[in-house]
Amino acid sequence: MQPFATVLDWREGTISPADNVVVRRLSDMKTMYHDQAAMARMLKASDPVLYEVYEVHVPPEAGHLNHCCSIIYPGKVGDEYFMTKGHFHAVEGTAEIYVGLQGEGMLLMQTRDGQVAHIAFRPGVMAYIPPYWAHRMVNIGAERFIFLGVYPGNAGHNYGTIEQTGFARLVVERDGAPVVIPNPQAG
Amino acid sequence: MQPFATVLDWREGTISPADNVVVRRLSDMKTMYHDQAAMARMLKASDPVLYEVYEVHVPPEAGHLNHCCSIIYPGKVGDEYFMTKGHFHAVEGTAEIYVGLQGEGMLLMQTRDGQVAHIAFRPGVMAYIPPYWAHRMVNIGAERFIFLGVYPGNAGHNYGTIEQTGFARLVVERDGAPVVIPNPQAG
Repeated sequence: MQPFATVLDWREGTISPADNVVVRRLSDMKTMYHDQAAMARMLKASDPVLYEVYEVHVPPEAGHLNHCCSIIYPGKVGDEYFMTKGHFHAVEGTAEIYVGLQGEGMLLMQTRDGQVAHIAFRPGVMAYIPPYWAHRMVNIGAERFIFLGVYPGNAGHNYGTIEQTGFARLVVERDGAPVVIPNPQAG
Repeated sequence: MQPFATVLDWREGTISPADNVVVRRLSDMKTMYHDQAAMARMLKASDPVLYEVYEVHVPPEAGHLNHCCSIIYPGKVGDEYFMTKGHFHAVEGTAEIYVGLQGEGMLLMQTRDGQVAHIAFRPGVMAYIPPYWAHRMVNIGAERFIFLGVYPGNAGHNYGTIEQTGFARLVVERDGAPVVIPNPQAG
């Protein structure tokens, strides 16, 4: 395989050329926010883009390294900030590194045996998500939240578990500030 | 294993906290520059730091991700720009990603079967070094050249091969500008 280069624009959150751009709209995450009445009201009015992921494709094999740049737009569904779907890796014994590039965020993490953790992001924060930890990013600021992700080529994604159980923590606005609270609906 | 975070200062090239800072001086690379007379003259006068690497340690296992930030200082030995030692990974079937953060550089790469490649770096350039490619970074600018590296936890380093054979290409100054030329001494 030949070496190659892309350009990461860390102010805009784009990678050029990208092999794929994932676009997640509100309707793609219908069941994932705790305030379902707020979700229904918002969807009646429009279907905004919540986040985008600029992906570079490499062989889906151990030894290779997936890399992508994500943009989460600012906003809330009810009191809950815009966020990614969140996932385990399909091959759970694989880590991920996130590097905060622009804006403010919160990384939520949890394991299948009930451990939870979170890390606040600003530009330059570099988080290590160890193997076996599901992860979700949340934009807690007024600007776009942009971050780079690197993970093993063979990691894959398992969104289904989180879709079924929810995340154990929510990030919601209380008195104008973000707080991390237990999710009463988590299964 | 618990998640953790560090802070990458991409203007200064530091990671805080780092688990280790590798410091490479001129004397650590005595045999690696093509102009050995210039090397001897420089070493008589002083032994400057050529580059530093801020490392974060993770378990040395597949599925984990090493990450480090390197600073190559500006300068030359004769007409050859300051550079890293260069290496294959000990587990050669492992890739690496470099992200240019500050300054200007050149990434030299080569395989054991004689393929060569190079990629010019400025901030935002993100290079994919596939498995089986040795890699060396060179500072071709007047400022510090700073870049982030991410590679599999089990990759390891093999510096010996490059120490013995040299790199197939040199990056030297010609008429005030960097050029990549064949290395007449490469073994």
